[in-house]
Amino acid sequence: MSVALRHATLGMGKVSPNPMVGAVLVRDGRIIATGHHDHFGGWHAERSALEAAKAQGVPVQGTTMYVTLEPCCHQGKQPPCTQALIDSGISRVVVGSSDPNPLVAGKGIRLLREAGITVEQGVLRDECNALNEIFMHYIVNRTPFVLLKYAMTMDGRIATAAGRSRWITGEESRRRVHEDRNRYSSIMVGVGTVIADDPMLTCRIENGHNPLRIVCDSRLRTPLDSALVQSAHDVPTVIATCVHDDDQARPYRDAGCEVLTIAADDDGHVGLPALIRKLGERGIDSVMIEGGSALAWSALHSGIVDKINAYIAPKLFGGAAAPSPIGGEGVQDPADCYRITDRRIQTIGDDILLEGGIAYVHRNR
Amino acid sequence: MSVALRHATLGMGKVSPNPMVGAVLVRDGRIIATGHHDHFGGWHAERSALEAAKAQGVPVQGTTMYVTLEPCCHQGKQPPCTQALIDSGISRVVVGSSDPNPLVAGKGIRLLREAGITVEQGVLRDECNALNEIFMHYIVNRTPFVLLKYAMTMDGRIATAAGRSRWITGEESRRRVHEDRNRYSSIMVGVGTVIADDPMLTCRIENGHNPLRIVCDSRLRTPLDSALVQSAHDVPTVIATCVHDDDQARPYRDAGCEVLTIAADDDGHVGLPALIRKLGERGIDSVMIEGGSALAWSALHSGIVDKINAYIAPKLFGGAAAPSPIGGEGVQDPADCYRITDRRIQTIGDDILLEGGIAYVHRNR
Repeated sequence: MSVALRHATLGMGKVSPNPMVGAVLVRDGRIIATGHHDHFGGWHAERSALEAAKAQGVPVQGTTMYVTLEPCCHQGKQPPCTQALIDSGISRVVVGSSDPNPLVAGKGIRLLREAGITVEQGVLRDECNALNEIFMHYIVNRTPFVLLKYAMTMDGRIATAAGRSRWITGEESRRRVHEDRNRYSSIMVGVGTVIADDPMLTCRIENGHNPLRIVCDSRLRTPLDSALVQSAHDVPTVIATCVHDDDQARPYRDAGCEVLTIAADDDGHVGLPALIRKLGERGIDSVMIEGGSALAWSALHSGIVDKINAYIAPKLFGGAAAPSPIGGEGVQDPADCYRITDRRIQTIGDDILLEGGIAYVHRNR
Repeated sequence: MSVALRHATLGMGKVSPNPMVGAVLVRDGRIIATGHHDHFGGWHAERSALEAAKAQGVPVQGTTMYVTLEPCCHQGKQPPCTQALIDSGISRVVVGSSDPNPLVAGKGIRLLREAGITVEQGVLRDECNALNEIFMHYIVNRTPFVLLKYAMTMDGRIATAAGRSRWITGEESRRRVHEDRNRYSSIMVGVGTVIADDPMLTCRIENGHNPLRIVCDSRLRTPLDSALVQSAHDVPTVIATCVHDDDQARPYRDAGCEVLTIAADDDGHVGLPALIRKLGERGIDSVMIEGGSALAWSALHSGIVDKINAYIAPKLFGGAAAPSPIGGEGVQDPADCYRITDRRIQTIGDDILLEGGIAYVHRNR
C-alpha cells in the first residue's frame, strides 16, 4: 500500500477534482505492475495497473491488487473499475480509503465480493485519507477545502518591524509551499499583501500547475501594474470585491482578470463564506490562503478554515511593530481562542511545520 | 548512567552553585548502591553511594561506579572524592561529563588511573552536560546562565488583544515552568509585567525553592502594593533600577526589597550585562527571564541570552493589537535575525516546547 500511495502522488495537481489514486498488482509477494490516476479524464489507477501488466504480457489471474481508494462502480468519465477488476480474474483486492462519494459508498466493495473476490479494507487508511483530504472534503461539502498557511519566526513574526519578509523559512519549506501550490486548485491573498509584496503566486516546480489566483480586495485597490494583474492573461486571476461599479472593474477585466462581486461581511470585507460557495460551484475544490494577517483573521473568524500549516523558522526578529500571522480584531479572552485539533509536528530542513485542523466549537462562531 | 542521571536530579534546586551529580555502584551488572549530591555542603554523590553501600553492609571492593560528572580531586566543602574512591577499593569508574572547573579538569581521572582504577569517559556525555548546563556555564564565565522563556499561541501571541494571558499553555507546561523556577537561582521580569499581571513568581512545587525575584525597573515604577513588594520580607526580591535617589528607593527597602542601582543602557533601560555581572559576583548562577516582551528584546539585543524556551500552545488568538513575545525595536532586515542553534522539539501535554541557543554572530551584537 505504501508503494500504491507513492504512485498515487504522481497525479498531484493534474486530477482535480478527482482524487489521487495509486494501485499495485502483487503475485507471491512481488510487484508485477503499478498504476495511478494520472490526469483528469485519464485511466483510473486500477485500469492503469491492469493495462501495465497487459502491456508487459504478465498474466493477472489470481493476483492481489492494492489500491489506495475503494474502486468506483459507476459510469463516469471512465467505465466502472469494479467491472474491470472482476473481468481481469484477480482474486483479492486490498483497499485503503473508503469512498466518501455517496454514488459509490461501499457499493464497489459489495460488487467485488459478490463476484467472489476477497476484499480487505482500511489498510493504511489514515495515510490514504490524508492524501485525498481535499477530495474527501469537497465531495461531501461541495465547498473548497481551505488551508491557512503562514511562515513565522520562533517569536511569531511574519515580517520585521520594517515590513521585510524575504526570507523567513529555508529552501526546503519554500519548495514545499510550491508543492502545495501545485496540489491546490486556488491560492488566495488579501490586497494588502499584493500592495506590500507584489507576488506572482505561481507554482515554480517542474511540470507544476498554476493555481487560480484570488485577491480579496473589497474596495478594488489592487494596483493595475502589479505582477498579478500584468500576468492575468497567462495565469487565471480572480479579484473578489464588494465594488459593483463596472467602470472601476473594466481595467482589471481588460487586463485579463475576472472581477467577482461578493456581498460584504459585517466588517466591510469580502464575505468569505459566500466567496467559497461560489468557488465551489465552479469546481474549485481547494483554496490555500497565503496572507496577509487581516485576511487570515477574516478567514478564521468566518469559519471557513479547514486546516492550518504554520511554518516556524529557528530565528528571532523581535520588534513591537513587527506583524504576526493572524491580525484583525482577535479574541478578547484566552478561553475564546480557536483551538487546533489533530496537531502534528514535522521538521522540514531547519524549520518546523505545525499542522492541524480548527475546532469551531466556541462562541465566536 | 541513566540511573545515575535520575538520582542526580534529586539535588535540583538545592545544590546551587554546585552541580547536580548522581552515582551508582554496580557489581556483576546489578546495582548495589546509589547516591547523589543532595544539597549544598552535603556529601558528594560518590561518597553518598559508598556510604549507602556501607550502611547496608555491602562490600564495594571490585565494583564499578557510574558517576555523571568527573570526580573532584580538590579539598572543598568536602574531602576529595578521588581519594575516597581509591580508598574504597573499587576497580572501575565510568564518567559522564568532564569537569569544566579549572581546579579539576582531568586531574581527577589521572589520579584514579595512577591508583590502578580503570576509567571510562564520555558515557551519555550530552545528557550529563545538559543536566548541568547552568553549572558548566557559570564555572567558566562567572556570570549567570540566562534562559529566556515565553509561552505563546500558534499564531505567536503572548496575550489577547485585550491583554489577557491566563492561560495560554496547559497544566503540564506550567508545572514544567515551576520546575525551572526550582532549578534556577533567580527569575527576572520587567516592570510592565509586574504592573500588568501582578505575579508572585514563586515556585509552587512541593519542597521547591523560591528563586531570587528580580524586577528590571529603570524608573522605579513597581507598585508598592504589588504582590512582589508585599511579599519581599518572605521571598528575596531585587529591584534593579537606574534611579539613584535614596528617597525614592526607601519605601521599597522598607518593604524588604533590595534596590540595586545599575547604569542605563543606550535605550535608557537597566544595563543588563552590568546587572548580570553583579548577580554573578554574588553567586547567582542562573536567571530565567519570564517577560515581558520589552525585557525580552533588551536581553536578546544586549547579548546576555544563553538559551530560549518557547512554549507553543495549539491555539490561535489573532488580533493585530495582541502582543508577541519579543518586542522592542526588533531587527529591520530578515538577514539580521537572531538565529537559534541546536534547535530541539518536544511535546509537553498538548503544547510544544522549542529549545535552543542563540548564535550571536551578526552585526547586531
